[in-house]
Amino acid sequence: MTYLDHAATTAVRPEAAEAFARELARPGNPSSLHAAGRDARRRVEESREAVAAALGAQPGEVVFTSGGTEADNLAVKGTFWSRRAADPVRTRVLVSAVEHPAVLDATDWLADHESADVVRLPVDAAGRLDLAALAAELRAHGERTALVSVMWANNEVGTVQPLPEVVAAARAAGVPVHSDAVQAVGHVPVDFAASGLDAMTVSGHKLGAPIGVGALLARRELGLVPVEHGGGQERGVRSGTLSTPAICAFAAAVGAAVAEQEAEAARLAVLRADLVRGVLAAVPGARLSGPEDPAAALPQTAHFTFDGCDADALLFGLDMAGVSASSGSACQAGVQEPSHVLLAMGRDLAQARSAVRLTLGWTSTADDVAAVLAALPGVVERARAARTR
Amino acid sequence: MTYLDHAATTAVRPEAAEAFARELARPGNPSSLHAAGRDARRRVEESREAVAAALGAQPGEVVFTSGGTEADNLAVKGTFWSRRAADPVRTRVLVSAVEHPAVLDATDWLADHESADVVRLPVDAAGRLDLAALAAELRAHGERTALVSVMWANNEVGTVQPLPEVVAAARAAGVPVHSDAVQAVGHVPVDFAASGLDAMTVSGHKLGAPIGVGALLARRELGLVPVEHGGGQERGVRSGTLSTPAICAFAAAVGAAVAEQEAEAARLAVLRADLVRGVLAAVPGARLSGPEDPAAALPQTAHFTFDGCDADALLFGLDMAGVSASSGSACQAGVQEPSHVLLAMGRDLAQARSAVRLTLGWTSTADDVAAVLAALPGVVERARAARTR
Repeated sequence: MTYLDHAATTAVRPEAAEAFARELARPGNPSSLHAAGRDARRRVEESREAVAAALGAQPGEVVFTSGGTEADNLAVKGTFWSRRAADPVRTRVLVSAVEHPAVLDATDWLADHESADVVRLPVDAAGRLDLAALAAELRAHGERTALVSVMWANNEVGTVQPLPEVVAAARAAGVPVHSDAVQAVGHVPVDFAASGLDAMTVSGHKLGAPIGVGALLARRELGLVPVEHGGGQERGVRSGTLSTPAICAFAAAVGAAVAEQEAEAARLAVLRADLVRGVLAAVPGARLSGPEDPAAALPQTAHFTFDGCDADALLFGLDMAGVSASSGSACQAGVQEPSHVLLAMGRDLAQARSAVRLTLGWTSTADDVAAVLAALPGVVERARAARTR
Repeated sequence: MTYLDHAATTAVRPEAAEAFARELARPGNPSSLHAAGRDARRRVEESREAVAAALGAQPGEVVFTSGGTEADNLAVKGTFWSRRAADPVRTRVLVSAVEHPAVLDATDWLADHESADVVRLPVDAAGRLDLAALAAELRAHGERTALVSVMWANNEVGTVQPLPEVVAAARAAGVPVHSDAVQAVGHVPVDFAASGLDAMTVSGHKLGAPIGVGALLARRELGLVPVEHGGGQERGVRSGTLSTPAICAFAAAVGAAVAEQEAEAARLAVLRADLVRGVLAAVPGARLSGPEDPAAALPQTAHFTFDGCDADALLFGLDMAGVSASSGSACQAGVQEPSHVLLAMGRDLAQARSAVRLTLGWTSTADDVAAVLAALPGVVERARAARTR
């Protein structure tokens, strides 16, 4: 099988699987005071230190969660509630129009339920945030803004966002910034302290940990209001029994992904260049989404539209040929809707429905690229034929 | 080591560990449409059917979560929001005073943040809900009540609550009922449909699954408002990538725990009787918490207070003797506060601070009981001496 959907979920790294299995055999609730509990707590705190060190954060800034979705919800809602409580006029939330659904749906809920004023900032044709629009919003309404949330890099088309400029503009206006870095960690250099961010989302299963664990890195001063209430774990910011196995596996995967990031990015950039060149050469009507300059995109992500095709037919054809790909985010649970990312980039509905995302990962090889290049021209031809029939 | 803190977390069952390891080697996001995704989805849905069958629910009523805390938050907040949206006068929430912190803190937040009127219903000296107080509240304010939440059995003292009467009273008043059944499943018979409940919380790691997975069983008509927004998994009720390994392990553990429930309850009831008899006989000033009738308590839970002792000293002494126990809930992350459960039962502060909970599980044996009975008299004596010194 040719698996080119690593952005949906990637294979578990052996060091993460080993850490999980090792800890699973040593039961103990990290909140218990007895020896078994203290042992579990020590391994949780060692993992917290390892994650913090790998990502340029302080251990006290790491809040373990059940994954990226929960971390995004905590960042967006927790910051909104915290800032609005401190200053009731801060009801505005600025997000890019191409955020992950975990951010967009959380902010939509704040709009519906908490009367937040949510502004979706435009992006250019490559999916890059319109910094002038951000600046204009902050100039006009900075004192009424609770939060800016802009992802580190897009999960569909791979565009890396101009975060240093976003952070500089928001800081000058006194507004905290959250970034969903789920697709960035392990693929581009990520340093939380150096970024100037106030909060940043990390997911385990995109970088080789099991599904079900992640973290929000958050500055203590942010004063996050919890989304999950209960026993008071994670300094009261996120309640729920801590899973020592999942957290140790997460730390092992983050450590490995960050340690290998530079070499792996270089390796995948070569594969991606071959893939992009090959698809554009072999398939008439294929168009690369996102930036043309590979330095402005994630090294693992190649996203295309195919004129005159439906994504469903393309994905079915690829699947029949043994190639696992997707049209974009896997989250919509089987429903193929036109991508909000492509629409925000100015593509029309037909193009937004003709998208295929091919994403590489730590197990990808040149054979995977060769396999999809061999299959794709015929798949596209049949998809076009099916549509005109 | 003598581990008598199974209510905090229990050892992972071999069938759950095997299911987890098996699925970990087969990556795939259950929301992906390709073969790997569809395979993962099939195993998630088979697990959903197995959990539903074991607990007397329909598969469509099973919402997988990251654990009991998240399920409690979803039940309490999601029902409150849903009911209040349907009828703005429904702002009251009735809970027993001895609920788990995941319910109490969630309702406290609703009071602070959403102006909910939260009523903590009293319990008797054995920790059993005052049904007359519930009836009076429902009679006086039933039309303004959004939700009743009463746990199936208490996590500290083991008291089984009169749920049939609670459900009958609430149903007659048109108010939905949620129950945290985290400590009940696998230890007493639990059938969701027969219970008449509208929502019920189950946690994996209390019955032999890894920490980090659980479920809320919820009737579809409840129209739960999500707490975690995003990709729309679990019919939009709970977003976040589904962990096939954790869900398959959860289903394996629930299946085993429920299949063995009757035999295991009988086995543990004998151990518990020996434990209770032994402690009361060997330790002057020891007092059993909860109901005297073992049929009114969980078979795995024995909770005592020891006059003139501090729980810290008792737990330290037991730990030194190789016995892992707790003073109550492990959730407070190392902070020993007087138990709200014992205070609600009418105990004074000194008694509430002198509590030790001994909880049995599927790995417990008569040797564990013998070990704690051998250690406890000396530990109590030294704890008392330390205090009067």
